[in-house]
Amino acid sequence: MTHRFLAAAAALALVPAALAQQAPPSPGEIVGAAPAADWVAVPPDDLLVMDLAPDRAGKDRRIVIQLMPAPFSQGWIGNIRKLAAAHWWDGMAVTRVQDNYVAQWGDPDGEDAAKAKPLPGGLATMPEHAYLVPAERLPLRDPAPGEAGEGRRDPYAASTGFFSGWPMAFDRDHRWPVHCYGAVGVGRNFSPDTGSGAELYAVIGHAPRHLDRNIALVGRVVSGIEHLSSLPRGTGALGFYENPAERVPIRAIRLASDLPPTEQPRFEYLSTESDSFARYSDARANRRDPFFIAPAGGADICNIPVPVRAAGAK
Amino acid sequence: MTHRFLAAAAALALVPAALAQQAPPSPGEIVGAAPAADWVAVPPDDLLVMDLAPDRAGKDRRIVIQLMPAPFSQGWIGNIRKLAAAHWWDGMAVTRVQDNYVAQWGDPDGEDAAKAKPLPGGLATMPEHAYLVPAERLPLRDPAPGEAGEGRRDPYAASTGFFSGWPMAFDRDHRWPVHCYGAVGVGRNFSPDTGSGAELYAVIGHAPRHLDRNIALVGRVVSGIEHLSSLPRGTGALGFYENPAERVPIRAIRLASDLPPTEQPRFEYLSTESDSFARYSDARANRRDPFFIAPAGGADICNIPVPVRAAGAK
Repeated sequence: MTHRFLAAAAALALVPAALAQQAPPSPGEIVGAAPAADWVAVPPDDLLVMDLAPDRAGKDRRIVIQLMPAPFSQGWIGNIRKLAAAHWWDGMAVTRVQDNYVAQWGDPDGEDAAKAKPLPGGLATMPEHAYLVPAERLPLRDPAPGEAGEGRRDPYAASTGFFSGWPMAFDRDHRWPVHCYGAVGVGRNFSPDTGSGAELYAVIGHAPRHLDRNIALVGRVVSGIEHLSSLPRGTGALGFYENPAERVPIRAIRLASDLPPTEQPRFEYLSTESDSFARYSDARANRRDPFFIAPAGGADICNIPVPVRAAGAK
Repeated sequence: MTHRFLAAAAALALVPAALAQQAPPSPGEIVGAAPAADWVAVPPDDLLVMDLAPDRAGKDRRIVIQLMPAPFSQGWIGNIRKLAAAHWWDGMAVTRVQDNYVAQWGDPDGEDAAKAKPLPGGLATMPEHAYLVPAERLPLRDPAPGEAGEGRRDPYAASTGFFSGWPMAFDRDHRWPVHCYGAVGVGRNFSPDTGSGAELYAVIGHAPRHLDRNIALVGRVVSGIEHLSSLPRGTGALGFYENPAERVPIRAIRLASDLPPTEQPRFEYLSTESDSFARYSDARANRRDPFFIAPAGGADICNIPVPVRAAGAK
């Protein structure tokens, strides 16, 4: 009987019982076995709920984005909360989908002073230094720079690690969030503009780490990324849709906390300070589950995605 | 006027002329300016041409895959050439699309001994050590392990670099190709099975480097990746399509050299031994074009994609 490539979950069921009992657990198995106490609830006002227009089969397309906690990008995140409260994105659209890069959304007429939708009052204008967090504001729970060892070598920073469920890069003086798959960031003009938060993008390809420190990251997609990553690619420059009919309308973007309580999606993430996460992270770097013959001995930070799941899931 | 995030190409046209003349070139500009002599034609028998069934708008969907040169994966690539010559994939299908991972294709009935399509005779059975190339078979043109410097640190190998247009990882004793976005590899069962080449996959997400050395890589998609990366994701385990009606039929897979000469697609890649590539690689690692404020000072191997273009393009 032929097994499919990496049919790990299905195939493991066909492994002889003795071998299944001895087989080192896969990362997914470690996560599935993590106790409830290792999971941290995401506050509802940290969840941005984006509903695209239904697909051609009439099915809803909901994307949920977890916003970053303090001290990261709080000015931009404050703006995003104001925009969501003002229902500013209702009727806006996904305007750009570039393969192996980003899907981007906002005001299709944002470049036209005559047609651009006015922004709500009171939005913060953020300085460029706010892309970085000074080291003293963020105690390191991971090895200090230079101590990370070979298994966490990174060409973009002295060291990488996790803080309260988020992947970070570090040098001696600063910490900053990293552009992994599904990360959500703030579109901007040339420096010194840093963007308001009205124009957002999600990473749908190989982690574009060269964008770290150059643009504000505000969160990550925790559900529904496929509604962005499987969109047709734009044929214009940089993947912009050339024909307005190609744009994907946004029905609404709301903070979960602004939805009726019974309708609020609930999510939880695996604490990156937990023993479960440490074992999961090690298993990502050293795959010893039956499919693998050569454990890597290391992993890049974006190849250790922090587990996030709908709360109440088992 | 508001510029879109990373509207680099469009925005650069609006940069004042004096600034445009002084602005360091972007990676794309370096590639566009590379002389013809820096481009290497891909032999037509290194090009696998995959035509999916037309999309719902009736448009053709052609994917072109460049196969790796000797000494990499030649046994599997020999099998792939035999399968293509036998028209074996005609009527097969894309059976699996897993977000941030792979799209996979082959015989949907491959697991059913009664229904599986017989393979052509004479296919090679490859040993696991063939995932790796002994160091003595491949002279290094890049820094030796340990000499790569901080800008090429890699958690998966002592060093990385390029050989004849292909990204590689190295340790003291071996070289091996790496799973970057668009890489094509060979589906297999559990060890010691190494796959025949009849079941193939392409990477459509963050580079799954943990698969390096565990599975045979045979090539990369050089055109039409969007026809795989924008497919609906499968809802079954590991992204397999649960409903046979969801599978995407393959009309044909042919070697370019087996197509009529006037119909053969032609491609060329930027020589990784050229000065243009060295400057492109440096620009990928140190973005100094106007959008960026903080050059990274390094890049992971998969964030320096080797430029490949249709031949005759300018």
